[in-house]
Formats: sequence, structure tokens, C-alpha cells
Amino acid sequence: TPESEERTAVPGVSTGLAVTGMGGDVLFVEASAPVTDEPLQPGEGGTRLTLTGQLGEVMKESAQIALSYLRAHGAEQGIDAARLRGSVHLHVPAGAIPKDGPSAGVTMVTALASLASGRLVRGDVGMTGEVTLNGRVLPIGGVKQKLLAAQRAGLKTVFVPQRNEPDLDDVPDEVLAELDVRPVSDVAEILEYALEPAAQQGGAVAA
Amino acid sequence: TPESEERTAVPGVSTGLAVTGMGGDVLFVEASAPVTDEPLQPGEGGTRLTLTGQLGEVMKESAQIALSYLRAHGAEQGIDAARLRGSVHLHVPAGAIPKDGPSAGVTMVTALASLASGRLVRGDVGMTGEVTLNGRVLPIGGVKQKLLAAQRAGLKTVFVPQRNEPDLDDVPDEVLAELDVRPVSDVAEILEYALEPAAQQGGAVAA
Amino acid sequence: TPESEERTAVPGVSTGLAVTGMGGDVLFVEASAPVTDEPLQPGEGGTRLTLTGQLGEVMKESAQIALSYLRAHGAEQGIDAARLRGSVHLHVPAGAIPKDGPSAGVTMVTALASLASGRLVRGDVGMTGEVTLNGRVLPIGGVKQKLLAAQRAGLKTVFVPQRNEPDLDDVPDEVLAELDVRPVSDVAEILEYALEPAAQQGGAVAA
Amino acid sequence: TPESEERTAVPGVSTGLAVTGMGGDVLFVEASAPVTDEPLQPGEGGTRLTLTGQLGEVMKESAQIALSYLRAHGAEQGIDAARLRGSVHLHVPAGAIPKDGPSAGVTMVTALASLASGRLVRGDVGMTGEVTLNGRVLPIGGVKQKLLAAQRAGLKTVFVPQRNEPDLDDVPDEVLAELDVRPVSDVAEILEYALEPAAQQGGAVAA
Amino acid sequence: TPESEERTAVPGVSTGLAVTGMGGDVLFVEASAPVTDEPLQPGEGGTRLTLTGQLGEVMKESAQIALSYLRAHGAEQGIDAARLRGSVHLHVPAGAIPKDGPSAGVTMVTALASLASGRLVRGDVGMTGEVTLNGRVLPIGGVKQKLLAAQRAGLKTVFVPQRNEPDLDDVPDEVLAELDVRPVSDVAEILEYALEPAAQQGGAVAA
Amino acid sequence: TPESEERTAVPGVSTGLAVTGMGGDVLFVEASAPVTDEPLQPGEGGTRLTLTGQLGEVMKESAQIALSYLRAHGAEQGIDAARLRGSVHLHVPAGAIPKDGPSAGVTMVTALASLASGRLVRGDVGMTGEVTLNGRVLPIGGVKQKLLAAQRAGLKTVFVPQRNEPDLDDVPDEVLAELDVRPVSDVAEILEYALEPAAQQGGAVAA
Ligand SMILES: [Ca+2]
Ligand SMILES: [Ca+2]
Ligand SMILES: [Ca+2]
Ligand SMILES: [Ca+2]
Ligand SMILES: [Ca+2]
Ligand SMILES: [Ca+2]
Ligand SMILES: [Ca+2]
Ligand SMILES: [Ca+2]
Ligand SMILES: [Ca+2]
Ligand SMILES: [Ca+2]
Ligand SMILES: [Ca+2]
Ligand SMILES: [Ca+2]
Repeated sequence: TPESEERTAVPGVSTGLAVTGMGGDVLFVEASAPVTDEPLQPGEGGTRLTLTGQLGEVMKESAQIALSYLRAHGAEQGIDAARLRGSVHLHVPAGAIPKDGPSAGVTMVTALASLASGRLVRGDVGMTGEVTLNGRVLPIGGVKQKLLAAQRAGLKTVFVPQRNEPDLDDVPDEVLAELDVRPVSDVAEILEYALEPAAQQGGAVAA
Repeated sequence: TPESEERTAVPGVSTGLAVTGMGGDVLFVEASAPVTDEPLQPGEGGTRLTLTGQLGEVMKESAQIALSYLRAHGAEQGIDAARLRGSVHLHVPAGAIPKDGPSAGVTMVTALASLASGRLVRGDVGMTGEVTLNGRVLPIGGVKQKLLAAQRAGLKTVFVPQRNEPDLDDVPDEVLAELDVRPVSDVAEILEYALEPAAQQGGAVAA
Repeated sequence: TPESEERTAVPGVSTGLAVTGMGGDVLFVEASAPVTDEPLQPGEGGTRLTLTGQLGEVMKESAQIALSYLRAHGAEQGIDAARLRGSVHLHVPAGAIPKDGPSAGVTMVTALASLASGRLVRGDVGMTGEVTLNGRVLPIGGVKQKLLAAQRAGLKTVFVPQRNEPDLDDVPDEVLAELDVRPVSDVAEILEYALEPAAQQGGAVAA
Repeated sequence: TPESEERTAVPGVSTGLAVTGMGGDVLFVEASAPVTDEPLQPGEGGTRLTLTGQLGEVMKESAQIALSYLRAHGAEQGIDAARLRGSVHLHVPAGAIPKDGPSAGVTMVTALASLASGRLVRGDVGMTGEVTLNGRVLPIGGVKQKLLAAQRAGLKTVFVPQRNEPDLDDVPDEVLAELDVRPVSDVAEILEYALEPAAQQGGAVAA
Repeated sequence: TPESEERTAVPGVSTGLAVTGMGGDVLFVEASAPVTDEPLQPGEGGTRLTLTGQLGEVMKESAQIALSYLRAHGAEQGIDAARLRGSVHLHVPAGAIPKDGPSAGVTMVTALASLASGRLVRGDVGMTGEVTLNGRVLPIGGVKQKLLAAQRAGLKTVFVPQRNEPDLDDVPDEVLAELDVRPVSDVAEILEYALEPAAQQGGAVAA
Repeated sequence: TPESEERTAVPGVSTGLAVTGMGGDVLFVEASAPVTDEPLQPGEGGTRLTLTGQLGEVMKESAQIALSYLRAHGAEQGIDAARLRGSVHLHVPAGAIPKDGPSAGVTMVTALASLASGRLVRGDVGMTGEVTLNGRVLPIGGVKQKLLAAQRAGLKTVFVPQRNEPDLDDVPDEVLAELDVRPVSDVAEILEYALEPAAQQGGAVAA
């Protein structure tokens, strides 16, 4: 099984795609929150967001945007944002490698939605795309390298921004043949597919 | 339909105009607030303003000015600022492009007023202008490029500062023929026109 | 009517005088506070001061001094500082022009006193002077350029620091003939004249 | 009357001595606190110290030391530090002139003690000296220039650190003849003399 | 007895391995929390993490990750994270030597788990490895130097990341003969072995 | 009597040893806390630590370590850390001289323990040594210069880190003859000797 299956075996982890100095690579976004054994207090309505993984300014802003999207629009997608109040920690390993750019936006939304809902992210799904406060998916760079990395990593389905569709012409046919590449314009389309049903997971817990 | 119609299809989004290194361009200001499922607490009377989009110092100050204008004068324009207490996030895509200057002031006021009231911003309206704490609209630069961009983007009505009226002489007649350019000295004039009536929107929801 | 009449038509705005790279100029200090629809909470006894307008360090300190002066000595001048608890925003347009120096101190005191009392600042009054925590008015520079600017702007009465009186010798007679220049050593003298009576304004509201 | 008499006519102001690029000079430390119309809240037990006057790092630390000295040892000198809870503002005019160094420590203690007690500081008293957390007075530089400045300013009594007594040899006899120079090793000795009796002031209020 | 036995004689201390300019070295991570004589207050649900030891950015992030791992997953390993609420201080002596990198992650998790549970860390155990928010152990550098240092320091068991197993080929046989080197992919495997049973310690206290 | 006797005549002051550009010197650490006339509030369980004396980063971290040691382990040494909640100020005169390094750790622990217990530090005792979160004393530099300074200052007993014992070979015999040099590995050994008995001090107050 590919590494992404292992990494996404807990809620809060989503598989992204990045461009590095040596081509493309798979990148995991981890979201975590304390197990709270007491009801949230009045003053804890806001979110204390901890960001690690040597994230640059733009990527830190992406995390804030992802969080605000879910706090404002999560309910429309069946995601209860209550779990995103209090402390939330978002980490992007490896810890020592600097990362930046807006293209992990959709991956951050998905990781936080998984944490909030307790629903796992499918292990064979990758994604890339800037996200806005309203969930719109904006175009990013490095589509070719990212899809090559997705195929190498054994992913099956990859979400890319609608406006990056023309970039698919540059991707080798053999790569496209092995991937289900889905251009999207709204991150809700990603959440709908990438999050495993709550029922399936509930069943696993009951087993 | 132009992109501005799509972007402004949710409350909290307003269409501005910017000067970039390659002429003028349309810019969207997004405002968002968490869906609050509990009454605001005493200590949450103030606003925690999150600003993203690689905004420069002057543009960040514009956002604070826009917020303070609505908290002090919103009620005079029929805008209840209660929704602007607690957490408010203001984002200006694209996330990786640095932006600065005071000319998005009126666009920020309009986006926040839309968020606070739930009334949509008309999708065919663009605007540019510095705003003061009392809503006065001060002149800005790049009128010609901004109006060219507004026309290219399919906007119909564009608000500019009264004191920029002389700059209209430099704008090609064919551009002015397609745009309803409205010089204003108070941002309240923009709010009055650019925000769709609350009733109309209520009807849409009921349909 | 001069611009200063328009700008000071709402409480919280006072007319100052500045020296720019191109001589003197009129400058407006705007103070604003949210319309509060609920009693202040215990923890909100302090003031959260937001400062905008690209103010330099010295000018930011002037704002803090102006606020502290009114919180400690306002009652002696009939100014109830209660409105200055909670959030207060002080802005000096134009938003993109850097400003610095201590000479707007008296203008800031007057703008905040106007906000606190709801009394308008007279539109034909200008002022310049550093202020101390106890309201003493200390000398400033650029008296000649500032008075020339005051006359050009149609102001009638201008307050200057007592210790700047010798600088009046350098001001052209025709300028002094049109201005009522009042040297003062305490900002209370400015407040007493520059703030319109509360009664007069109450009458306007009743009309 | 010398300027120091005017400046110290309100509680919270003390006269210090400084060395500038052009010899010595008199310097005033102003302390201020809001007139509180409500009892302090539980969370307001600490002090929010605002420091202005373009103070350097060492001078800012002096202010913290002065405050902590009074909060721990004030009662031993009959100074109730309760007034020093909540917001306290300490300003050293002129606002645009950078200042640094530890030698205003005793002046800051005296200004804060005057504010806390409501007792005026004698207008003919000047002082210089670093202070420690326990009130010990440590030696400073520029004794000669400071005493010359004290005499020029019409001061009668000047406190200097005990360990600076040898420096008095360098001060002209005519200056020493006009000044009552008092070397001290504990700031309590300064407070005892420099603060006017509470009774005298109470009488003035009753008159 | 080796130094590690002495250092780990109190809960909250774990033995790590570092690469320095002069080969490898043993490094101790100390975790501490105030003895609280009163129940935690509602507002104290979060953790105020103090980090000392001249830690670089990446190492500070490792500490945050270690804490978040235990607050989210501690209970799964029998670690009650309640002790990690309120103030927690994490120190890595020596105080003047700058340290950085992600490889102390597992050591930090173990030190904090020891503090939270009151269970001592075995004195003959060393460890190195980056940790993610979900406890996954990622590869690090300097395996050879670190194992040489572990042997020199008299350690018996050393945990290394699974993905560093190939690096063991470079380690001299005589070193491997004296060490029980255990490659792991989840920090829970380290906690299970390295923390002494709670019962054993209870007995020691009773003795 | 030596200066150290005078300086340590109030609780909260301890005598350390430093290396300066001109050999060794005696250094005093002063700890202070407000006299609190009301019970501490729930939210005041933590410590607001103010550090002054132009302390460098490492020395500031030493202060945090000293505080955390006492909050976690003070009770084991009979030191009630309750006085160390709320505001604590730690100052190292002279105010304008930059200081850094970890070797004042034990002096800071002793000063804070004296403040917390009200027990004076013996005036003829000096000390130097880095301290860890668990009270272990780590080696420092400059032993020879520090002991020379201790003797010059009239100290009788000096605590040094155990691991610095070899450095005593470099100290002149006549210096060692006049000093009782005590190598220690745990700061508790210093506290046990350096703090005067509480009884003795109580008697002094009763006298
Ligand atoms: Ca899976
Ligand atoms: Ca395909
Ligand atoms: Ca529309
Ligand atoms: Ca037209
Ligand atoms: Ca008017
Ligand atoms: Ca005149
Ligand atoms: Ca007097
Ligand atoms: Ca004399
Ligand atoms: Ca052991
Ligand atoms: Ca082995
Ligand atoms: Ca003694
Ligand atoms: Ca000896």
C-alpha cells in the first residue's frame, strides 16, 4: 500500500501535492486538536491556531483561510465546525523543510474538515489548489510535476483547479491514464468525494 | 456572465479595481465570519480581525478603517454591525500576490456591510476609493487603467471618488459609453446602490 | 465653505496643521468609537487604541498622551471620558502618506474630546502644538508654513503654543490680518473655545 | 518662578536632570492614571504601564523598576500603591527627543509616588540617580553638567547618588554655593523630602 | 552509573541524542510543571509552553508538536494529558548552546509523557527521531555519530526511526553489539518501553 | 562590612559572581513582588515575570528556569512558591550594563527562594552556576576570576558547580585560604545553607 494510505489512517490527515527543487512530491497536512474532557468555556469560542512545519507567510495565511472557510461554510457541507473551536494544530511534515505558497489550501480545508467530522480522508486521493474564503478553488503552478508525483505515490484520484485544466495537455498520457484527474472550482466538490462516509467509519469503530 | 457575478453570489464579497504591473485589474474582497451557534459573550464585544492576501501596511489599515466606519456609522445606513463583533476575516485573493495602498477602502466597507447585513453586492458593480473613518471618499490613482479593467471584466456601474472626476477626461469615450461611472464623496452612496435589497434576497431563499 | 467645515460636521474630527515637503497643509484627525448597544464589561475599562494613517512612532505616542490626558484630566474640562473606554480608533488621512512628529498632540486631544462629548469642533478653527500628559502645550516647528496653510484653507482662528509666539514675527502681515492667532500654554484653553456648546448641537438634533 | 514650579503644580510630576549633546538640562517626568469612576476589577490587579517620550531600552527598564519598587516598598514610605494598579502612563517630554540611560530612576520613583499619594513634588527640587528594585541609589554620570543645569533652572535642592560625591569636586564653587546638594544612598530619603506633606495640599483643596 | 541514570531520576526527563560539531552527544530534555495547589481554572484549559535552552525555530516547533500529540493521542497510550494543561516548561541544557532540528521530537514526547504520568523514563534508554502530530517517527540524520555517543554514554537501548534502518550498516559492529537498537515507526512504541511502570515507582515512594 | 551585607539586608537579594571585561566582579540579583492586599484571583495562577538589567537571551532563559524550578520543586526544599504567583520582577543592576550567560542561574534561584520565603540570603555567601529545571548545577566558566572577585568583595563562602572542581587548581592558594569554596551538584544544597533560618529573622522583627 502507498504511504498515503498509512498516513490518512487517522482523521485529520490529507494528501497534498507540492513542487520541490527536485520535481514534485507528495505532502501530508496533519490537523489535530486536544481531546477535551470538559465543555468549552465561553471565552474559548475562537480558535487558537498553531502552525508548524516551517511554513512561509502565504502558507500560514492559507491555513487561516481554510479554517475560516469551515467556520463559516462548514455546516453547508455537513461539517460541524464546533471541533475547530479552542486549540487546533496544523502541521506539515517534514519539520525542517521550509514550505510556502497558496496551493495547499484545499488540502488544509480537507484535513481540518476530516478532523472536525472524524471522517477519514480517502488514502488514494491527492489534491492541489488555492482556496478562497468562500471555497472557490484558484489556479496553481506545477501541475505536471505534481501529477507525476501523484502517480509515483500510487494515488488514484487527484483534484486540480478547474482553471488549470489546460495544463493537463503537458502531462504525459501514461500518467493521465493511471489517474482520475478531476478539475474543480469549489472545494466542496473535493470534500464530498475525499471524505469517507461517517457511517463506514462508525462501523469500523463498532467492529 | 462575468466572473464578478459568480464571486459576489455569496454575501461578503465586493468587486474592487486595482492597478497592477500590467495595467488595471478586477480584485475581489472577501469578508467572512464564523457561523455562531451561541450568543456572543461579554468579552467578545470587540472584533478580532484576520487579514490575509499578502496585504501591505496601508491596505491593512484600510481594513481597520472600514471596520471602524461600520461599527460607528453602520446603523445610519441600516447596517447592523452586530455581525462584525467576534471574529471577522477579510481576504483578498490571489493569496500569493502582494497588494497595498488605500484605494480598496470603499470595497472593504462594502464587503463588510454585505457580510453584516446578509445582502448581496450587485455583481455588475465595481468601485475604487480611499475611505476615512467617517465614510468620506478620498481620491486615488490609476483611474484610467481601472476603468479599462472594469469594462473588460463586464462591469456596468463603477464608483470613483468625486475628486477623481477630472481624471475621466483621460478615459477613452468607448469605455465611458459602456460604463455608468458614478463619482461619490461618501461611501454611503455606494452602499445604497451596491447592496441588493434584503427583500429580494429573502425571496430568492424562499424560492 | 472650506473643506474643514465639511470634515468637522461630525463629532470626533479636528483640524490640525502640518509641514509637508511642499510647505504647510491642513490635516484632519478623525476619532471614532463603536456605537455600543450594551453596557461596557468589567474587563473593558481600558482603551484599545487603534491608530492608522501611517503614523510614525512619535505621532503614535502623541495619540497615547492625548488619550491619557483626557482619561485623567477630562472631567476638569467637562469632558466625560467614559466614551473613551473600550475601542477607540484614531485616523489621520490620507492613508498612504507617512506622518510623524509631536505637533498634532493638541489636535488629537481635541478630536478625542469631541468624540467623548459629542460636541462638534468648530470648522473654522485650526491648531498645532505638542501636548504633555498634563495638558501643557509645548513649542513646535514650521509656524510660518502652518499659518500660511491655515489662511489658504479659510480658517479663522488658529491656536499655537505660547512659546512659539516669537515665530509670529516671520509670518506675513496679510496672513496675520486674516487670522485670529491665539498662543496658548494649556490645551484646556483650546478645548474651551474649539468645542461647540453641547446645547447648540442638541438643538440641531431636535430640529 | 522657574519652570519647574509650574510643571510640578500637579501631582505626578518630578524634576530630573539630564546630559544632552549641549551640556546638562532639566527634564520632567510626568506620571498619570485615569480617573477611575468604578472599583478596580479582580483582573486589573496588575499595572498596564504605557511609556512615551522616545525612551530607550534602559530608560524603559528604569520605569518598570520604579513601579516595582513602589508596589513592593511603597507602603514602607507611606505611599499606598493602590493607585498604581490598572493603567499608568509615564511620559518624559519633549516627545520627539530620544532619551536613554538609567539616571532618571529616582525621578521616576518620585513622580509615581506623587501620583500614588496625590502629594505634590516640591518645585525647587531636582534629582538624578539610578535606582534598584530595593530603592538603592546607584551612581550616574554627568554630575557637573547636571548641577550646572540645576542652577540655571533655579532649583534649590538637588539629590545625587552618594557614590557620586567625589564628582562634586569638579563642580564650580559658585554653583555649589547656590545649591543644596544632598548625596543619598536610598530613594526613600528623596521621597521623604521631595514630596510635600499631604496635609498642606489637603488644606489647599479645602480653601 | 552513567549520567543518564542520574538525570532521569525524576519524572519529566528523557535522554536524546544529538550531532554536534564534535561528533555525537547525549542530550537531556527536561519537562516541568508547577505543583498546583488549586484546581485548574476554566480559562486555563490551554497550555502555556515555555521553551528554553536556546532552541532554534524547528526545535521549538518540535516541542509544540510533541505537546499536541499527547493532548490528542495521549489517552490512547494511557497518558492522561491533564497535567499538561496550564504552564509547562521544556528545557534542554546546556543553557548557552544553540540547538536546532526536528530529531529531538520523540525525546520531547517521552519527557512530556513522563511528566504527565509521573512515570520515570528508563535511565539506560536513548532515542532520536522526528515526530509528527500523529506520532509517526520520521527519519533523521547522524545515526552513526548518535549511536557512538549512546554507547560512550553507557546507554543500553536506543530507539531510531524505522526509515533510518539502512544507516545502521555504517555503524561499527562493536557498537551495535553493545546496544539494543530498535527501529520504530510510531512514538507509541517508544513510550511503551521507555516509561517505567507506574506500579514500580509507587513502590519506590512507599519504601 | 562588605557591600554584599548591605545589599542582602532585604529578602529577595542574592550575591552572584560574574566575569567582566576587566576580570571578575560581584553581581546582585534582586527579586521583588508587589505587596498584595487582596487574595490572588483565579486567573492569576501564572507568573508575569518582568526582567530588567539589560539581560541577554540566555540570562533571561535562566530566570525562567529558576522560576520554574521553584514552582515545581520549591516545596521539596521548604519554599512555598505561592508568593511567586502573580507579578514577579527580577533585576540585575547596574541597569545600563549588558549581561548574559547561564551562570547566574543558581543566584536567581536563591534570590527568588528568598523572596518567596521571606528568609534573607546570608551576606557573606556568593555563588555561580548554571541551573537546570530539576535543580542540577552545571559547570560554568571564569572560576578563577570569580573567586578572586569574591575574595576582594569580602565574601566568606562561595558555591561553585561540582564539575568545576578541577578549575580550583588554577586559583591562588591565598585566595582559597580565605574562602570556603563548596562544590555542589544540586541547587538545593545552596538553598539549605545560604538562606538564613526563618526563626532568626522572625526574632529580628519581634525585637
Ligand atoms: Ca483509508
Ligand atoms: Ca484519467
Ligand atoms: Ca448578483
Ligand atoms: Ca457612462
Ligand atoms: Ca461646524
Ligand atoms: Ca489676527
Ligand atoms: Ca510646588
Ligand atoms: Ca550647598
Ligand atoms: Ca532510572
Ligand atoms: Ca544490538
Ligand atoms: Ca545578612
Ligand atoms: Ca577554603
